[in-house]
Amino acid sequence: MKIALAQVNPTVGDIDGNQSRIVEWIEKARAEGANLVVFPELAVFGYPPKDLLLRQDLIRRNVRAMEQIAERCVGITAMVGYVQPDPSGAGKGIFNSAAICRDGKIHASYAKRLLPTYDVFDETRYFSPGSGPLVTEIDSGSGTIRLGLTICEDLWNDRQFIGRRVYGFDPIRQTAAAGAEVIVNLASSPYVAGKQAEREAIFAEQIREQGAPLVYVNQVGGNDDLIFDGAGLVLDGKGQVIARTEAFAEDLLYADLETGGRVESYPDRIPGICRAVVLGIRDYIRKCGFEKVIIGLSGGIDSALTAALAVEAVGADRVCGVAMPSRFSSDHSLSDAEALASNLGIAYSVIPIEDVHRSMEIAVADHFKDQSPGIAEENIQARIRGAILMALSNKFGWLLLTTGNKSELAVGYCTLYGDMCGGLAVLSDVPKTVVYEMSRYLNAEAKRPGIPENVLTKPPSAELRAGQCDQDSLPPYEILDAILEHYVEEDMSVDDIIGCGFDRATVEEVVRMVDRNEYKRKQAPVGLKVTSRAFGSGRRMPIAARCH
Amino acid sequence: MKIALAQVNPTVGDIDGNQSRIVEWIEKARAEGANLVVFPELAVFGYPPKDLLLRQDLIRRNVRAMEQIAERCVGITAMVGYVQPDPSGAGKGIFNSAAICRDGKIHASYAKRLLPTYDVFDETRYFSPGSGPLVTEIDSGSGTIRLGLTICEDLWNDRQFIGRRVYGFDPIRQTAAAGAEVIVNLASSPYVAGKQAEREAIFAEQIREQGAPLVYVNQVGGNDDLIFDGAGLVLDGKGQVIARTEAFAEDLLYADLETGGRVESYPDRIPGICRAVVLGIRDYIRKCGFEKVIIGLSGGIDSALTAALAVEAVGADRVCGVAMPSRFSSDHSLSDAEALASNLGIAYSVIPIEDVHRSMEIAVADHFKDQSPGIAEENIQARIRGAILMALSNKFGWLLLTTGNKSELAVGYCTLYGDMCGGLAVLSDVPKTVVYEMSRYLNAEAKRPGIPENVLTKPPSAELRAGQCDQDSLPPYEILDAILEHYVEEDMSVDDIIGCGFDRATVEEVVRMVDRNEYKRKQAPVGLKVTSRAFGSGRRMPIAARCH
Repeated sequence: MKIALAQVNPTVGDIDGNQSRIVEWIEKARAEGANLVVFPELAVFGYPPKDLLLRQDLIRRNVRAMEQIAERCVGITAMVGYVQPDPSGAGKGIFNSAAICRDGKIHASYAKRLLPTYDVFDETRYFSPGSGPLVTEIDSGSGTIRLGLTICEDLWNDRQFIGRRVYGFDPIRQTAAAGAEVIVNLASSPYVAGKQAEREAIFAEQIREQGAPLVYVNQVGGNDDLIFDGAGLVLDGKGQVIARTEAFAEDLLYADLETGGRVESYPDRIPGICRAVVLGIRDYIRKCGFEKVIIGLSGGIDSALTAALAVEAVGADRVCGVAMPSRFSSDHSLSDAEALASNLGIAYSVIPIEDVHRSMEIAVADHFKDQSPGIAEENIQARIRGAILMALSNKFGWLLLTTGNKSELAVGYCTLYGDMCGGLAVLSDVPKTVVYEMSRYLNAEAKRPGIPENVLTKPPSAELRAGQCDQDSLPPYEILDAILEHYVEEDMSVDDIIGCGFDRATVEEVVRMVDRNEYKRKQAPVGLKVTSRAFGSGRRMPIAARCH
Repeated sequence: MKIALAQVNPTVGDIDGNQSRIVEWIEKARAEGANLVVFPELAVFGYPPKDLLLRQDLIRRNVRAMEQIAERCVGITAMVGYVQPDPSGAGKGIFNSAAICRDGKIHASYAKRLLPTYDVFDETRYFSPGSGPLVTEIDSGSGTIRLGLTICEDLWNDRQFIGRRVYGFDPIRQTAAAGAEVIVNLASSPYVAGKQAEREAIFAEQIREQGAPLVYVNQVGGNDDLIFDGAGLVLDGKGQVIARTEAFAEDLLYADLETGGRVESYPDRIPGICRAVVLGIRDYIRKCGFEKVIIGLSGGIDSALTAALAVEAVGADRVCGVAMPSRFSSDHSLSDAEALASNLGIAYSVIPIEDVHRSMEIAVADHFKDQSPGIAEENIQARIRGAILMALSNKFGWLLLTTGNKSELAVGYCTLYGDMCGGLAVLSDVPKTVVYEMSRYLNAEAKRPGIPENVLTKPPSAELRAGQCDQDSLPPYEILDAILEHYVEEDMSVDDIIGCGFDRATVEEVVRMVDRNEYKRKQAPVGLKVTSRAFGSGRRMPIAARCH
């Protein structure tokens, strides 16, 4: 049997556009002689639709699109994710479903049974769970074969919750028990660094237990903070990968359950993070309809990496860099920014802020007299830069990319309405230590000079006062990032983190900074998620609260 | 039987502080001869705890606090909301529970069965549902009486979802069937304008059906965006209100099931919104630990109302107003701002922005040449004002209050990093038409001049260019607010809104503006929720998406 894994990149809510793409790929797969073509979870609507699911008009249009797609399924079977209204009106009134389309109509629909409601997932907010397995027979060309439909979380179930039952049952086992010879899984599973290895291990374990091969098709593309990495799979009955689609790109792959198909490699950790972020930038720009992006170039590593990734995403001719030196900027800041822009081949201009800075100082002078200089004075400079970048963004319709990294955002080492300005925070889930790794990797990959070596080696500084250096205010980044991983990603307590071998005073200070800066993160732009816990929709913290 | 309704105002995560308050009120109730004292849902932890519930150390501390509270319950029974670990480790591992404390220990715990997961609620993200009713016997002084415990949503169940079964069963009916003679409900039910009447109607219907009286104790206080209004109730078996605690304030009320108790009145709509917002401001300031607030006074009605409400919340001596006139400011802007400050008795200063404005124009002049002036130039002024206010906020540790209303925020008639700056958006869920109603009400209530009459009568303008007027860019506010209510609060489609009698072009333009400005709202400060759907945690929209 020839199976097509149709790894599409839908836009959330763009039902017409998504429908066209799906129909186009069904035609292609039929032309190639495929018996079956499988699309990702909610391919008609795009994932995650969020509160667009509360819009009855959009639900109806998605049903109409699904019916029209089914009409095109003659001489081929398609499995397509869509939002299925529950005619009983019970529960939430809709299911997260997969339609089996053949003979010009929707033959049957399977409703997802396990609805993830943790981290970035809110599925019980919207969907009722399905109530049982669905096995369908399909003509493989050489006899019928029984396929069991499942959707994303169904395949993970309690295996991802180490040592704790969350769902308490295994839809895969039930699907196999209902007679499925092959498990099909339609997914919209977001990228996290390291997750593909986990996926393949968990899926292999499942499949070995049931002895049935697996066809897994994942959404690809960036939708706001979430990056879907694709990397669809065919696993044989022993759990071996016999086909893998490309990661981080649309792909239509043909595979046979016995002989497999093309096996694309999945990138290693640092290349993977780079490709994820590049895809996240590209799709945010494309799906929002921007022509160009603008980036403030400080001469530091975060803005340098952001610019390099933006160039990868949309090309140098669509990236504009602006340096905004102040009285505290060192000479190398400007020369490094200029060298970077020149290396990357992007537009570059310099807008000194001294005059605006001085006029702001005069404006607040009466209020600030008798006060010693501090954070307020530093933030003024960052906010002037933010206002200049936003003025250019507003005037020319360019998207401002925010350059801050996760370590800074965690401890509040950034200025709200200053360097936090922008529509997309490219590195806000990338710890500072990983920023260096990514930069060195991109430089090594590039065929020409990229991020200037001096940017990689000089001590990081915000340059908002004379002689400032990050490490005067913060622990060394290796220690800071390790503590943050325990506290933010793993929800560990202060005592447990100290138990891992860190200094008590340092841990307490870091944790205090994280908690105190929740108000800044509340107003942060959308940031691209690459770790198991990003700031944003996956971490929902109160502000007017005590945490210790 | 003498029952104490202990309407406390917990701080989220402040387990020690909440425990002290609970113990203090248990002592009081015992001293007054109460047989039973009832606290709100999750009183030990504060509601909503959000992702603090993922912190195992906080869960353990909440259990220890609950045990220590129980130790103090001798000679009285207390019912207290807390987070109860599920020893089986199944599901989410914790329950949203109510402990029955007597004889110095936790006698039993009831786990909430209906977990709201819609609007601002995420309870299935955290909690497992309880599996059955709990009825406990209590010595009333004149024989035993059987009380059935329930928590918040249990009492609402499917009655709030008109025409659709969501939960499919009624825990109140089951509790009555299990022998409860009285229903007790521990709640943390947030304020929405008009909701108290709905509560009393739904509760009365429930109680009449079961024939059992109701004791309902609701949390009071502001926790970030949510304002809890208290207004606890005792309903007799016929559904009549025979006791009501104060709204928007802590209250310890004693009632008897036959004779009732004190019956406080619940404020009407506009006074209610004012009291809600005042409580929201006051608690955000107190729970975050701010001394003073700062407000940019434009001479317009939004900033005037914000200042008046802030004065109600924390007193005139803790409110600072700053006027920042530009070349486009009319004379009345400055005189109205000054009159307002003088009427309210708040600190007032003037910081003209002309020089900073000019220096910013010069800074971007090279880039802006050959461009016609537009939004970018307007936003520059708003961002200078934002930067000045934030400089004062940073220097003196004052909380900047954001003054924009819901109508503006909906259609993006506001500047990101400009007038959207601030830690708390006081009016971001108050439509412009209601801003006028609240202002007139506050003026009528005040014993001295408040918001100057000219502020109430002049046509609203952002004054960011010569001769600007809101109604040049927007439909009349009466029409705009009506369309927004349909689209934002009711999720109606464009066609359905037009079907209500609105002009197609106007509806399409408003809806387009709402959708296009999702990115601004993503970065908006916490806003106080007063309608059935506020922007923020109750409305989760994608950005890089199409909605039509």
